[in-house]
Amino acid sequence: MGGFFTGRTLADLGRDLRSGDASAAGLLAHAFASIGTEANAELNAFVTLDREGAEAAAKWADEELASGIDRGPLHGIPVAVKDIIDVAGLPTGMGSAHFTGHVAETDAACVTMLRDAGAVIVGKTGTHEFAYGGSGDVSVNGPVRNPHDRERMSGGSSSGSAVAVAAGMVPLALGTDTGGSVRIPAAFCGIAGFKPPFGAIPTEGVFPLSPSFDHVGVLAGSADDCRIAYHALTGPAEAVPSPVDDSAPHGRVAWIEPETADPDVVRTVRALFPDAPAEPLGLFELRRIFRAIQDCEAYEIHAERVAAAPELYQPPTLERLEQAARTPGWRYLRAFRERDGFARQVAGLLDRYDLLALPTMLMTAPKIGETEGPFGRHAPALVALTCAWNVLGLPALSVPAGTVGGLPVGAQLVTRRGAESLLFDMAARLTG
Amino acid sequence: MGGFFTGRTLADLGRDLRSGDASAAGLLAHAFASIGTEANAELNAFVTLDREGAEAAAKWADEELASGIDRGPLHGIPVAVKDIIDVAGLPTGMGSAHFTGHVAETDAACVTMLRDAGAVIVGKTGTHEFAYGGSGDVSVNGPVRNPHDRERMSGGSSSGSAVAVAAGMVPLALGTDTGGSVRIPAAFCGIAGFKPPFGAIPTEGVFPLSPSFDHVGVLAGSADDCRIAYHALTGPAEAVPSPVDDSAPHGRVAWIEPETADPDVVRTVRALFPDAPAEPLGLFELRRIFRAIQDCEAYEIHAERVAAAPELYQPPTLERLEQAARTPGWRYLRAFRERDGFARQVAGLLDRYDLLALPTMLMTAPKIGETEGPFGRHAPALVALTCAWNVLGLPALSVPAGTVGGLPVGAQLVTRRGAESLLFDMAARLTG
Repeated sequence: MGGFFTGRTLADLGRDLRSGDASAAGLLAHAFASIGTEANAELNAFVTLDREGAEAAAKWADEELASGIDRGPLHGIPVAVKDIIDVAGLPTGMGSAHFTGHVAETDAACVTMLRDAGAVIVGKTGTHEFAYGGSGDVSVNGPVRNPHDRERMSGGSSSGSAVAVAAGMVPLALGTDTGGSVRIPAAFCGIAGFKPPFGAIPTEGVFPLSPSFDHVGVLAGSADDCRIAYHALTGPAEAVPSPVDDSAPHGRVAWIEPETADPDVVRTVRALFPDAPAEPLGLFELRRIFRAIQDCEAYEIHAERVAAAPELYQPPTLERLEQAARTPGWRYLRAFRERDGFARQVAGLLDRYDLLALPTMLMTAPKIGETEGPFGRHAPALVALTCAWNVLGLPALSVPAGTVGGLPVGAQLVTRRGAESLLFDMAARLTG
Repeated sequence: MGGFFTGRTLADLGRDLRSGDASAAGLLAHAFASIGTEANAELNAFVTLDREGAEAAAKWADEELASGIDRGPLHGIPVAVKDIIDVAGLPTGMGSAHFTGHVAETDAACVTMLRDAGAVIVGKTGTHEFAYGGSGDVSVNGPVRNPHDRERMSGGSSSGSAVAVAAGMVPLALGTDTGGSVRIPAAFCGIAGFKPPFGAIPTEGVFPLSPSFDHVGVLAGSADDCRIAYHALTGPAEAVPSPVDDSAPHGRVAWIEPETADPDVVRTVRALFPDAPAEPLGLFELRRIFRAIQDCEAYEIHAERVAAAPELYQPPTLERLEQAARTPGWRYLRAFRERDGFARQVAGLLDRYDLLALPTMLMTAPKIGETEGPFGRHAPALVALTCAWNVLGLPALSVPAGTVGGLPVGAQLVTRRGAESLLFDMAARLTG
């Protein structure tokens, strides 16, 4: 399943670009070649390619480097962008028949930041319809397939971005994460996915799902490449020393035990943190809070579309929206009040620990089209361990933690806002 | 119906207190005497009197004045406080059987401010149950009666505060106003009521109804006394000159024509502003926005009480809450979005005009216990012209504008945040 970029880090590529061993135009040609293989085309990662725009951008990147203008580690790097993020002149399809033929007029803020960093935008990647689901198999563009087993879900909603990276078609992709949509497909596809703290990357020009929880995030082959991309998009963060134990270079870790999960998945991740004390946290309660808020906000955004053209939605999306329409407003408000209680509890944990560790997912990737599994309906089960960190707005990173039955498993690391560097340091230690 | 304070302004009382023609203890004795007359007792304005506390406060106020300590225009003035506002050591009953026997431990912030200004707190006044209604006849304490016709509503929810002032029992009272609850009873009872801009007086220690719209306000015999009390509670505001027409001392006025109303009421108020051009505004749409937001917020506050002891509510309150429970969350969010549109429209009006004028009420006070009238169900009809200014958080003043069929009619003035002085200047001109 490897493409050109499999095993090549941003540091490798940057070195080759600056030594003359590679050019942006050459990297782009490799990207298109990988995307175009029959095997990779079947994965259905991309919905739009922008050959002309990308070639012009690569040429410009090469000319800049040749003339001594160096925009940093993303300069000349081919990047894929999730298809709910506007790229000027390209369709933004949202994975939905509602947006067939819709072309974006301007770049989303995060795309502008990518371009300013010298990145070359290759095209748009498939998304779960309107990013409203974690399976990645509900889209007018058809399911995005898992490179490890094409009959299995890629995970979503940033499905195509994860698969494009996992299959080596590009070294980096932008996704969005409202309840886990960067980390879920990263975990299922065996790559790294980073959701920054809430608000760290602007969401302007990104189609909203639940504005209280919407985040832009990055997907790459390794946590270190996520760090490089994140810093390129936001400026480097300060290194944050542990306030508790300065002698421990990577901080003190608490283990958050899932209330229920595939025991093999839990064992695989737990093995990475054998000494971390387990701390209780009501993740399933946090999921209830997440659902109440997300559903009200999502329906408010879709109400007119549901009324005018319900038949244009994929049936599972319409079913979720119709259910979301009935969530009472007082439950929405109550959920925010309850969130405050959890925020205090987790702040207390993060006074005593620097990192929280847990699996990213309850299970390995289910079969495409499956709606139920041993942990209940997939729609809620898929976000069970990830959405808490959207509710609380904390930085969360999923990194490969091994495999179960040949399918990837992700370890999830969470920390305080502003302490993102601890996540990347720990991830480097896990894989180093 | 006049009591001792009828026709006596805060300026009159302050002069007498400082000349030695009156004492705080004497004014308090007059207040208790007026409250105790058989006729006034039947009005049911007060639910709790604090003779001991008030007498101590009056004695202290007199001693301070005698020793040269002068706390300003409220020094030594008897004041009544609505029974959803905490006064330390006194019951806060909320007009509800749910709070029978509940005694406040600390003063609400606005009560602390009253005490700091030297006011003497006489007691607590009857409120529509939990302030959730504008009629003033739904309370475990029974209906508060209109001094102009005891078979008629006082209006609510600051019912007792309005009646205590209207019947001359006290010169000043605190109320709260979430959709009109200061201005409605002021208009029905023929006095002045002022709702400051949102947040101008803190709501800490006031039982919430709908935190997005809850305001503390003041009720007095005249707009000028409202001004004095407001400044005493918040510090004097700067005089705000008209940005449009500096030669007009009281600003340019737009007339907002109600979409439907008793024509005699409209004619009476319109006669005060014969030259004001009429400007369109969708007040009934604003009321829909108000309801969606208020209902969700109110139910969130009451959910546990409704579940545990629904029988303790007055039936109309329970009915409203059960309806409120069903308002979908997306409607709550949509209402805020729609509010933004109206806020822009009204900001545009207030660029061209300094004041908006309209009736306070669609009608004169209906009979106690009536739930329907020519303008529909009273619950929504009573707030039809007032709640817009809670939704937009703008300062709004109701002043007596005459009578229709022997019953008082109120004129309502609205302006920009920070331009409150224009309201009081215009009111002085109307009555001067």
